[in-house]
Amino acid sequence: VVLTNGDVDHVAGLLSLRESQPFAIYGTRSVQRAIAESPIFGVVSTNMVPRVTVEPGSTVSLPGGLACEIFMVPGKVPLYQEGDEVEVGLETDATVGLRISAGDARCYYVPGCASITPALRDRLRGADLVLFDGTLFRDDEMIREGLGSKTGRRMGHVSMSGPEGAMAGLDGLGIGRKVFIHINNTNPVLIDGSPERRQVEAAGWEIAHDGQEIAL
Amino acid sequence: VVLTNGDVDHVAGLLSLRESQPFAIYGTRSVQRAIAESPIFGVVSTNMVPRVTVEPGSTVSLPGGLACEIFMVPGKVPLYQEGDEVEVGLETDATVGLRISAGDARCYYVPGCASITPALRDRLRGADLVLFDGTLFRDDEMIREGLGSKTGRRMGHVSMSGPEGAMAGLDGLGIGRKVFIHINNTNPVLIDGSPERRQVEAAGWEIAHDGQEIAL
Repeated sequence: VVLTNGDVDHVAGLLSLRESQPFAIYGTRSVQRAIAESPIFGVVSTNMVPRVTVEPGSTVSLPGGLACEIFMVPGKVPLYQEGDEVEVGLETDATVGLRISAGDARCYYVPGCASITPALRDRLRGADLVLFDGTLFRDDEMIREGLGSKTGRRMGHVSMSGPEGAMAGLDGLGIGRKVFIHINNTNPVLIDGSPERRQVEAAGWEIAHDGQEIAL
Repeated sequence: VVLTNGDVDHVAGLLSLRESQPFAIYGTRSVQRAIAESPIFGVVSTNMVPRVTVEPGSTVSLPGGLACEIFMVPGKVPLYQEGDEVEVGLETDATVGLRISAGDARCYYVPGCASITPALRDRLRGADLVLFDGTLFRDDEMIREGLGSKTGRRMGHVSMSGPEGAMAGLDGLGIGRKVFIHINNTNPVLIDGSPERRQVEAAGWEIAHDGQEIAL
């Protein structure tokens, strides 16, 4: 298990992997600290499941001949670590992306990202596959729907649409396949045939679905 | 939400209730401390979801005209709070049962219980419904199956079978319906038609299933 962030949607699944099953938990210093600070994660015994701290910029070898490089992306600390003031959009080791490669194939896994920087564009250029943060379609989507008071930006997620969004930002980079993941339940792209769904598909993006398998 | 224990199977579901939904979390001092010590539960905002500490022996009023009495049963602290030595089977506020009543109907919810004491027998006598700890059929079932090193007793769960088990201990108390809940995936009563399933049914017990509704 390689953790890219300490938020609930990234780490709560560990609690379902507590049945004396051997694996390892990779994560940056920040993310390892986040789970270490909540004793409930002790149910995943460190005797059976070592916790391996990885530095951004380093590459770890994973079973199956995979190489996994960890790199920082703009983000924020987990919700439950927020204090009165929160800095969103900084590149720290609280939110990272992964470059996963085997042989000549390489894909990127970036489930949380607050903005598309020039450095990120350069990194993703020409990748075979990019799995990218598709939390919201519009930055104010949750507010409009009366379901919350936060913008996507405030939550550390770049939106799909708009001039600074993921579709515009990752256009023209010669990426083989682009797939939105980590999609919030307010996002209208989840509705087959919705105008927003057609818009992302027209821009060359796919919407991930449960159980999806991708061969490169 | 009334918590009867601080273990993962009782509290992890809170992490799925974090979507700005108002409710309250009732629990004893021990159980409230358990979730307070893991900051990840902060995602269930205490502004929207108050945490109410209840003393064993007290009764709280719940929505829908329900009265809920909390009482201690033999148990143990959550797995992730265990130190080098663990005391199992003591009656503390780490593990409780609930008496839920409305009008003349009363049921008991006891998902974890390390032994059947005379006091517990007296309490459950004549209840309309008892939902009871059905973790294991045999105390050494996980060891026999090679799936773990712990007995049921060590985990704080009385077994269904045997002279000190739940079926024997709760026999002859004039309980209207007896339903086993909290059933481990090693328990052969989950298999329709298994000898163990037939044995519990012959003893007047039902096996709970997902989505089950019971009207009293």
